[in-house]
Amino acid sequence: MESIRAPFRGVAQDVRGRASCYKHDWLAGIRSGLGILAPTMYIFFASALPVIAFGEQLSSETDGSLSTVETLASTAICGIIHSILGGQPLLILGVAEPTVIMYTYLYNFAEGKEDLGKDLFLAWAGWVCVWTALFLFMLAIFNAGSIIVRFTRVAGETFGMLIALLFIQEAIKGIVGEFNIPEGEDTDSEKYQFQWLYTNGLLAIIFSFGLLYTALKSRKARSWLYGTGLLRGFIADYGVPLMVLVWTMLSYSGPGKLPSGVPRRLFSPLPWDSASIYHWTVIQDMGKVPPVYVFAAIVPAIMVAGLYFFDHSVASQLAQQKEFNLKKPSAYHYDMLLLGFMTLLCGLIGLPPSNGVLPQSPMHAKSLAVLERQNIRKKMVRSAKESMKEQASKLEIYNKMQNVFIEIDSSSVANSELKDLKDAVMNTSDGRTEKESQLKVVSELKDLKDVVLNTSDGKKETESFDPDKHIDGNLPVRVNEQRVSNLLQSLLVAASIFAMPVIKLIPSSVLWGYFAYMAIDSLPGNQLWERLTLLLVSPGRRYRVLEGDHASFVESVPFRSIVGFTLFQSAFLLLCYGVTWIPIAGILFPAPFFLLVSIREHILPKLFQPNYLRELDAAEYEEIAGAPRQLFSGPLTSRDRETIQSGNVNVEPEVCDAEILDELTTNRGEIKVRALSFHDENHIQVHPHDAPAA
Amino acid sequence: MESIRAPFRGVAQDVRGRASCYKHDWLAGIRSGLGILAPTMYIFFASALPVIAFGEQLSSETDGSLSTVETLASTAICGIIHSILGGQPLLILGVAEPTVIMYTYLYNFAEGKEDLGKDLFLAWAGWVCVWTALFLFMLAIFNAGSIIVRFTRVAGETFGMLIALLFIQEAIKGIVGEFNIPEGEDTDSEKYQFQWLYTNGLLAIIFSFGLLYTALKSRKARSWLYGTGLLRGFIADYGVPLMVLVWTMLSYSGPGKLPSGVPRRLFSPLPWDSASIYHWTVIQDMGKVPPVYVFAAIVPAIMVAGLYFFDHSVASQLAQQKEFNLKKPSAYHYDMLLLGFMTLLCGLIGLPPSNGVLPQSPMHAKSLAVLERQNIRKKMVRSAKESMKEQASKLEIYNKMQNVFIEIDSSSVANSELKDLKDAVMNTSDGRTEKESQLKVVSELKDLKDVVLNTSDGKKETESFDPDKHIDGNLPVRVNEQRVSNLLQSLLVAASIFAMPVIKLIPSSVLWGYFAYMAIDSLPGNQLWERLTLLLVSPGRRYRVLEGDHASFVESVPFRSIVGFTLFQSAFLLLCYGVTWIPIAGILFPAPFFLLVSIREHILPKLFQPNYLRELDAAEYEEIAGAPRQLFSGPLTSRDRETIQSGNVNVEPEVCDAEILDELTTNRGEIKVRALSFHDENHIQVHPHDAPAA
Repeated sequence: MESIRAPFRGVAQDVRGRASCYKHDWLAGIRSGLGILAPTMYIFFASALPVIAFGEQLSSETDGSLSTVETLASTAICGIIHSILGGQPLLILGVAEPTVIMYTYLYNFAEGKEDLGKDLFLAWAGWVCVWTALFLFMLAIFNAGSIIVRFTRVAGETFGMLIALLFIQEAIKGIVGEFNIPEGEDTDSEKYQFQWLYTNGLLAIIFSFGLLYTALKSRKARSWLYGTGLLRGFIADYGVPLMVLVWTMLSYSGPGKLPSGVPRRLFSPLPWDSASIYHWTVIQDMGKVPPVYVFAAIVPAIMVAGLYFFDHSVASQLAQQKEFNLKKPSAYHYDMLLLGFMTLLCGLIGLPPSNGVLPQSPMHAKSLAVLERQNIRKKMVRSAKESMKEQASKLEIYNKMQNVFIEIDSSSVANSELKDLKDAVMNTSDGRTEKESQLKVVSELKDLKDVVLNTSDGKKETESFDPDKHIDGNLPVRVNEQRVSNLLQSLLVAASIFAMPVIKLIPSSVLWGYFAYMAIDSLPGNQLWERLTLLLVSPGRRYRVLEGDHASFVESVPFRSIVGFTLFQSAFLLLCYGVTWIPIAGILFPAPFFLLVSIREHILPKLFQPNYLRELDAAEYEEIAGAPRQLFSGPLTSRDRETIQSGNVNVEPEVCDAEILDELTTNRGEIKVRALSFHDENHIQVHPHDAPAA
Repeated sequence: MESIRAPFRGVAQDVRGRASCYKHDWLAGIRSGLGILAPTMYIFFASALPVIAFGEQLSSETDGSLSTVETLASTAICGIIHSILGGQPLLILGVAEPTVIMYTYLYNFAEGKEDLGKDLFLAWAGWVCVWTALFLFMLAIFNAGSIIVRFTRVAGETFGMLIALLFIQEAIKGIVGEFNIPEGEDTDSEKYQFQWLYTNGLLAIIFSFGLLYTALKSRKARSWLYGTGLLRGFIADYGVPLMVLVWTMLSYSGPGKLPSGVPRRLFSPLPWDSASIYHWTVIQDMGKVPPVYVFAAIVPAIMVAGLYFFDHSVASQLAQQKEFNLKKPSAYHYDMLLLGFMTLLCGLIGLPPSNGVLPQSPMHAKSLAVLERQNIRKKMVRSAKESMKEQASKLEIYNKMQNVFIEIDSSSVANSELKDLKDAVMNTSDGRTEKESQLKVVSELKDLKDVVLNTSDGKKETESFDPDKHIDGNLPVRVNEQRVSNLLQSLLVAASIFAMPVIKLIPSSVLWGYFAYMAIDSLPGNQLWERLTLLLVSPGRRYRVLEGDHASFVESVPFRSIVGFTLFQSAFLLLCYGVTWIPIAGILFPAPFFLLVSIREHILPKLFQPNYLRELDAAEYEEIAGAPRQLFSGPLTSRDRETIQSGNVNVEPEVCDAEILDELTTNRGEIKVRALSFHDENHIQVHPHDAPAA
């Protein structure tokens, strides 16, 4: 392979590319002023809560060897390093579920060996990290990032479903555990007498289901009918941490006669306890690990390296989807190298390593797109109002606005040389010159132009252009690409380590509910899940599924093929789930997913008709041009529009920025607009002007 | 008033009208065969469950003087009498919430008086019933039923909201009560120790919220995407009793170490206990009531009579909405007379009386419409297939089907004389002859004719007529008007009295959840509720409300008028709610509603523009012709149809009979199709042929 023959090529390109905009990365963030705090807080809460939950899971799985302090510390340290030295600052790092599962296997293995035991667990895990780092270096140096285009949704979605399954399993295990005495506790303690154990269990059911229900409801707040847009937006963005707060407060409403310890709360040492301080000396113990185990660590290291390579790249990729119209270059290879260094560091100080996380990374990009939108809108409205005051013609008004937009756009990329570089790095060169890139902007602004010049479709001619109203719906997407929000949220995570005494007030049952929430929240948008539920829909109702955005396959693929593909994928999922139950070989659980990528490329095309396969699981190398769909028409259906026009409801429909983006993305952060159906392919070739320049 | 000058006129007309079809009432039921069991079971469960819940409420409010046995007995006795001797057999009788509230006031009053006390409570309540019966006789004799047209939605809906408020209050009181020791119980008993009281309370929260959530979900089962139509229909029809069963079973899953009595279960004596047997001798105690209290009983009696007059008439009216196309005459006056006799009977044997209940009565009519639809469909498909076998022309096929329909239609009304009688009774005479009534059928069958002759709108010409598929969506509504289902369900209620040992297994907390369910389930379709929530919708989203069926006023009435009307109505509601809290004068709580009817007629038209008032609260005497709307187009939107036609989904959309009716009615059983908006009035006058003969 070519990529192996040119080591460091990818890393070098990445470094050059990002270095040229490094200064702007900081300036853009600082120039945003206080506005940057909105995405910062949003990502901080979205990122800290799972890390706390994983810490609690890790603590109960490793008998307290690792806990919330360690997961928070790893997230904070890696986050700070990545935000300053990383390539793609949109990428958010954190301790993720696969890491927790791997560490659980490592612990179970170490605990069972006499010459390792609980004492040398962290030291041995350190060796696993050393090997992992080595593999990651190699992947980065030999440009493995370029094979990312071979990953299709089938492997990613099956893995996502496995994680959801494990979350549900964790939630159930957790709730059942609330009815029992935890291992190694004093069975004579008052709180472990039958009546209080039972009370604790009942409270756990109430808190976990309460959190699950309210969190799921608040997640959808943006589309609620009631309340102001601001309130709805706030609840949708911060509802889940808010609900954790509410249920934690409710857990203190029990009568005073309850013995202390009912309900059970988070179990974690404080960061200044000796158990936490010990981590700084893990490196000294690494020499005590017997050589045979040092080499045995290679096996889990291969798995972890594979997982991280996969997760880190996909998280980065989803934060850089082409619909975000990013202007700065990517840095897959360099980020992989840096991830290796961070894994090494975490291993040496006995922390579970962090990697790029989903869905937080695309959420980050999305929230920065909302910020940038507000920024652009403000400048363009000002320009339009100034022109209107000078009684400029419509065309003059539009031209001024276009110049403002081009200015904002070009400021983020230092010079055209960089543009060429980006093309080279991304392999997306299409020979465009500066001139052509301006032409692209013009086509992106076409909708706005139509509105300003009143040439849209002849319908609304009576309505004259009002900058306050009409600019909003017609702006192309731009993301405020900078490093400040990422750095700030990492610093907040670091600060929350010292808020451990407060975090420990959360009842553990609230976290079990949160696990169930994470599982259920990850399902919509996962096509495997959607196809599985489709099997339960009676034939007469399948047409209703068509109303969803993701479901074009219902129309274009015969039901038998859908069933066949879904059954194959489900069987594979069950196999993988089965592997996680095998005591020690369970550590190999990521292996089937690496296998799946290869099965998809070589075996599936023989079993399913290529057209159908492309509909169900489009790999990038098979994709056809994007669908001609107006991206920001907002969530109004044509029926809504008619209703508004016919009635005397004289208020403009209210659609806020974040809602527009919500409608367009799955819960995992993927843009929903899919590759065209193969039915439409010919049509596009005949009328290429129908498709907007993507 | 004319009606007072002609006593007994209404009753006599009713008796004549119903007598002429009395024999058919029984034959029609018997001819339906086993099909009649579906509506029977449906109404039995819908009717028995609230009666059980009210019995438990009454038991806790009257310290056990009355309980579930008595409410079930009253419902069974009155139901059997009404199904055999009653005028309108579609009307379902039962002990309702207003009765329970009145009896609670009666009990509190009697308990506080030394010369009445708990012992003479039932005897005194007997006197209240005697007076009530007297007032009801007078209302029936002097044709009060004819003023029913003066009742507008404003009074009924405000009353409905009050009942919902009281249900919620009952649910909260019930759940809080589970944390406390019930009055008059032994505080030393093990189950009343703190830890078990607390456990009982937590279990109550789980069971009541569990029931509430699952019942609300199962209610909507018919529109679920998943599962077969049969399963969905079953869950929608029987989901609530099913959920009571499920949660009762779950309540037995607690560990064996729980003391008996945790969780608390229904408290009721058995029907063969002495407390129940005492009721047969209540009449002997009535002589012991001091004369002053015999006359004091007139005050509550006026209230009860007013309530019953209102409730019984409205329940009957909603079961006979014109959209049901009933063929047999109404009997408002005679049914009121019979209600008087039944109230007297219940009073003498110490039972709380029953009256016509909502929403069960319109639910009954609806389920019988579904039954009749299946029946008509079967006969018409058979006729069409026979004709097609004989290779008849399209027109011949249609004519044969039309004859079948006319035959079914005319069999239910004995002769045309009866028709005239009905017109006279209902005051709906429009001079139609037999011929004209056949013309009406022809216009009702127009859609079917279009489908058969393929002349619909030129679109589907390629599709030929298939009796199995195309008859379904194009049949006019007919109700199987008979007495058998009502009698059978009353007998089932009677049988369930002897199943008390099983009913007593239900945890009381499940019933508190059921109260909350009844409250929440009654809100959709209540315009006061819908307008209240509209106030919380931000202006930019009000257009979404328009998508609902009930909300034409959003378009046609200025928002200020909506707010004004809603605030007035809410203030009135709060006033009424406040009255229920006054210790003894609370017994007057129905009085404000009688007042409201008069306020609506004389004061509101001065405060609000008549057009707007008509939109918000159309009285029958102000109503304009019905909207030209195809009734049974089914719940498909135009978008669905397009989707079906464009895609290759080659399965007919599945729409079952009950679902069609579900979509058209509010939870209270009202047909949703509203009077036309005043905007359209002129249009209708210009093109009268657009409006179908109603």
